[in-house]
Amino acid sequence: MPTPIDFWFDFSSPYGYLASELVDPLAARHGREVHWRPLLLGVIFKETGGAPLTEVPMKGAYSKHDFARSARFHGVPFRMPSRFPIPAQTPSRIVLSLRARDPALAARVAKALYRAYFVDDRDISDPAVAAEVAGAAGADAAAARAAVDDPAVKEALKGEVAQAIAAGVFGSPFFVVDGEPFWGVDRLPQVERWLAAGGF
Amino acid sequence: MPTPIDFWFDFSSPYGYLASELVDPLAARHGREVHWRPLLLGVIFKETGGAPLTEVPMKGAYSKHDFARSARFHGVPFRMPSRFPIPAQTPSRIVLSLRARDPALAARVAKALYRAYFVDDRDISDPAVAAEVAGAAGADAAAARAAVDDPAVKEALKGEVAQAIAAGVFGSPFFVVDGEPFWGVDRLPQVERWLAAGGF
Repeated sequence: MPTPIDFWFDFSSPYGYLASELVDPLAARHGREVHWRPLLLGVIFKETGGAPLTEVPMKGAYSKHDFARSARFHGVPFRMPSRFPIPAQTPSRIVLSLRARDPALAARVAKALYRAYFVDDRDISDPAVAAEVAGAAGADAAAARAAVDDPAVKEALKGEVAQAIAAGVFGSPFFVVDGEPFWGVDRLPQVERWLAAGGF
Repeated sequence: MPTPIDFWFDFSSPYGYLASELVDPLAARHGREVHWRPLLLGVIFKETGGAPLTEVPMKGAYSKHDFARSARFHGVPFRMPSRFPIPAQTPSRIVLSLRARDPALAARVAKALYRAYFVDDRDISDPAVAAEVAGAAGADAAAARAAVDDPAVKEALKGEVAQAIAAGVFGSPFFVVDGEPFWGVDRLPQVERWLAAGGF
């Protein structure tokens, strides 16, 4: 059984959202599973001195234009949320709380949360909103709501972010395929060739 | 006659080098010319607060790995130069001094200078080296050497960089197609579709 693709993402990352719509079919074409790994870019930026792309002079205006154009390029629906960025703890904890028992459900819920934010402009940092979205995607809404305040889930998310940093993950989306790191939705063509050819 | 593609690049930019090997055939497939526009990222970073990718924590090590892998992905020869980064004034001035009279020669010389740096590990910030490379690519080597110290050419390069900033150009490579901005060699697939479809 080949190892799953690590797919790291921040729920406030537009390029992470685009990747969330593309990574499962790509992996399936090569007989791979995807390990959905939420992270918190804010914590990582404290290590790297990074900043949200939209707040960087000149890059900020360009990147907002590029989010929408890249979505059209990939055929993925997209609307820039009215509140942006948002803290990603709430949706990240819900996904983590589901993943150990049911990874397929966790991935479905992650995709639904991303769409709620980047298509329907819903504030998924609000625990009530995020739990409702998780419920509509097939999870237990009350359990999802409870996971947001669960100390064990909070610790699990901290551990996940620490693992990201230890693995050299500094952005979203970020993929690791058999130990090979790829940063950015625009590296998916390289990920695809890597999977097809076993490296290049 | 369709407008040329503006191709902005810094001679010390590995992704700019990769783009220099790909942009002319891409443009030719769509009946376009390429306007080769050298810039100085160091000057632009003073405006934007940017920093060379290789000096950013975590991103630095990844990016060196990604330069070489992206070169293999695109089938372009690449060797990380032993001196990196270098100031780009010398090769930029040589290209600018040629461009007004003979844009095709300027492009040929630009490609030769990039290859000298990123394939043959020659220090093209050295005026003698850069002039020799320009001469081997078909330019007048003595005139190329003189252009490096020519006050009018120096002013022309300053003007070019000011135009880059005024146009919102903040990185290398950067393409402008009929007013539409694209940043990064990984946006060439979008440039190609834009040219084929007249926008999307």
